[in-house]
Amino acid sequence: MPPRNAFYAQSGGVTSVINASACGVIQTARQHPDQIGKVYAGRNGIIGALTENMIDTSAETDATIALLKQTPGGAFGSCRFKLKSVDQHRAEYERLVEVFKAHDIGYFFYNGGGDSQDTANKIAQFTADQGHPVTCIGIPKTVDNDLPITDCSPGFGSVAKYVAVSTREIGLDLQAMYATSTKVFVFEVMGRHAGWIAAAGGLAKQQDDDPPHLILYPEIPFDEEDFLKQVQDCVDRVGYCMVVASEGTVDMDGKFIADSGLKDAFGHVQLGGVAPTLVNKITQKLGQKCHWATADYLQRAARHIASATDVDQAYAVGKAAVEFALAGKNGVLPVIVRESVNPYVWSIGEANLSDVANVEEKMPRNFITEDGYGLTEAGRDHLLPLIQGESYPDYENGLPVYARLKGEMVTRKLTEFKID
Amino acid sequence: MPPRNAFYAQSGGVTSVINASACGVIQTARQHPDQIGKVYAGRNGIIGALTENMIDTSAETDATIALLKQTPGGAFGSCRFKLKSVDQHRAEYERLVEVFKAHDIGYFFYNGGGDSQDTANKIAQFTADQGHPVTCIGIPKTVDNDLPITDCSPGFGSVAKYVAVSTREIGLDLQAMYATSTKVFVFEVMGRHAGWIAAAGGLAKQQDDDPPHLILYPEIPFDEEDFLKQVQDCVDRVGYCMVVASEGTVDMDGKFIADSGLKDAFGHVQLGGVAPTLVNKITQKLGQKCHWATADYLQRAARHIASATDVDQAYAVGKAAVEFALAGKNGVLPVIVRESVNPYVWSIGEANLSDVANVEEKMPRNFITEDGYGLTEAGRDHLLPLIQGESYPDYENGLPVYARLKGEMVTRKLTEFKID
Repeated sequence: MPPRNAFYAQSGGVTSVINASACGVIQTARQHPDQIGKVYAGRNGIIGALTENMIDTSAETDATIALLKQTPGGAFGSCRFKLKSVDQHRAEYERLVEVFKAHDIGYFFYNGGGDSQDTANKIAQFTADQGHPVTCIGIPKTVDNDLPITDCSPGFGSVAKYVAVSTREIGLDLQAMYATSTKVFVFEVMGRHAGWIAAAGGLAKQQDDDPPHLILYPEIPFDEEDFLKQVQDCVDRVGYCMVVASEGTVDMDGKFIADSGLKDAFGHVQLGGVAPTLVNKITQKLGQKCHWATADYLQRAARHIASATDVDQAYAVGKAAVEFALAGKNGVLPVIVRESVNPYVWSIGEANLSDVANVEEKMPRNFITEDGYGLTEAGRDHLLPLIQGESYPDYENGLPVYARLKGEMVTRKLTEFKID
Repeated sequence: MPPRNAFYAQSGGVTSVINASACGVIQTARQHPDQIGKVYAGRNGIIGALTENMIDTSAETDATIALLKQTPGGAFGSCRFKLKSVDQHRAEYERLVEVFKAHDIGYFFYNGGGDSQDTANKIAQFTADQGHPVTCIGIPKTVDNDLPITDCSPGFGSVAKYVAVSTREIGLDLQAMYATSTKVFVFEVMGRHAGWIAAAGGLAKQQDDDPPHLILYPEIPFDEEDFLKQVQDCVDRVGYCMVVASEGTVDMDGKFIADSGLKDAFGHVQLGGVAPTLVNKITQKLGQKCHWATADYLQRAARHIASATDVDQAYAVGKAAVEFALAGKNGVLPVIVRESVNPYVWSIGEANLSDVANVEEKMPRNFITEDGYGLTEAGRDHLLPLIQGESYPDYENGLPVYARLKGEMVTRKLTEFKID
């Protein structure tokens, strides 16, 4: 059989290591020219396939592709776009088949979270039904670490490392300032529905009264009165208090606390932020001087302090995805298997796309201390292996060297397609 | 003459390298036991001297002292406290002399910004007048880079590096997301009165349309209408827009824009933040989807990505301070002298405390582009040398190893002293 081309796409929020997975895909594909022709990358994810906007990665040098391993963001562009069911959007599925046929695409690699795996699974089925079977392999990714089956999601370990390191650093700063200035620091981190990232802040603690003193998880409803009491108790006991708060912290009614009902002079509702919201409460109710930080993209783009374990795993799932395809597998994705806890040994396993799609894995309750504000030893033991090793990018002139693609586009063969 | 003891204190906001200066002081003092006895560090800065709360650094091992070079925060505690004039607070000056006499302190090293150098200068004069002359040497420090005479302030280079690296990383993330999601990102950085830190974000730019697209400096009054037009133009042209904003951005009336007049349901004024304030304007007026980050302590505690140049300079000024004292100098501080621009060569010079005290150095106007939103080539050439080199701390179990002091206190000899 002559080689067929491959399509690779990035989906959802990007991470500091999703390009390492891309690197794994492209480098591995280049080793099998007898089976895989060119790797086309969707410009802005699956939208790039629908609109026939594809980057020809064969135009990129080996050196550029290698650099992807140390480049954060999503080099080909990602998208927040989910294919609906075949019944609802049959035209889009048909368009995909048309594009795949036109460009002789026989492999589809979809690098994303649970949603993307659902999409990949639907495409596998549809293309088979249409008589143009495309091998569809998922590649796991999400900083939220909320995919089932896999031991962790590539992307998470590096955010966890950034948050743990930053928590330790902020804690030392606060410790130096509290005597005459800042008493409370609130560090807001990602995690809309699962507290994995906030939990990673807990790794910074070495001794009982070390920061962070309080962690707010989306899984534990926020009890304002109790929280303020905990903050005050901590300031009284330790002298200061450091809080790591999930952006997804919700009140007892399940409402995001950042949705604070603030209004400006014209009565417009203002967007909040968990950290400033908490700081306003602490300042007003306890009269403590506070500082706060909101990390947002800082944390998920922080390739400069990526976890070497995470980078290795991200690369490995990209590589394995291609190997799965070459081995004739379909409708599956590589996952991380924890072979041994101490020492941490992992390997690549295999899961069905349908088992991963749209399932959200929360933090086990036994990783959170009984009072709801801490990380247990079990949680610590689980998380610590994921932040091991420092994968530093190369630097030039004081700044990290990140890949800059030529981004040569594949010549279009079809008429334009409008996305609803 | 028998050796006399030394007093060292940290003052003001801490940095990721102020402990490197402490390391320089203590290691150098240890090499001269014939002239310097013990180094006592003020617990919480000068307050530690007034209240006779001093840490005996001689109880710390050489290994711990060496670790200070890679430890952020202020290991002995800092303070926001400024001695008033002798006329206003004579009792405090007399107390200092009493403490210095009781503990045979003949050297005073004050590690801080312009305020601290003023204090050190006053103490030098007062102790001489009182017949117990203490050699007072300043050690420059401030992330704001607003000290005069010195080429830069130790502490600034590392913040600049963090901000430059983070700006490049966030820019790549945004570039991947803008097609279907976030169009504008606002990254809030420190700098109450001077735009040096925001300017460092400009170092991330390599090509014309690279992020950051707009920099807001405290030196340039914020013109909301023009800013919103610039953001929209950038989104139209590039597809997305990244803004680096100083916390000290002020409106045309000189009022901080973060003082946004927001009120909660009870009519309490809410603390803002420049980033969320700007994002609210952009969302409401332009309807663009935004994300934002506020770095706060993250940036000044980020020892994990410190500038090697900055660490070297911070250590060097600590070392030089002791050498100055041993050479019989008084009322001076070591400064960084730029010997050559390309290649960047620096040396240690000397300045009078009185010339550095209470002078705030702003960004030269020619470092800011004419439109007020960019960094010029001159600014770039000036800043780039300061972020050269990566000084990585050691890691253990995935986290940086930072010094943990025994913190043995010097036995008190005097009665209690209350600070006003």
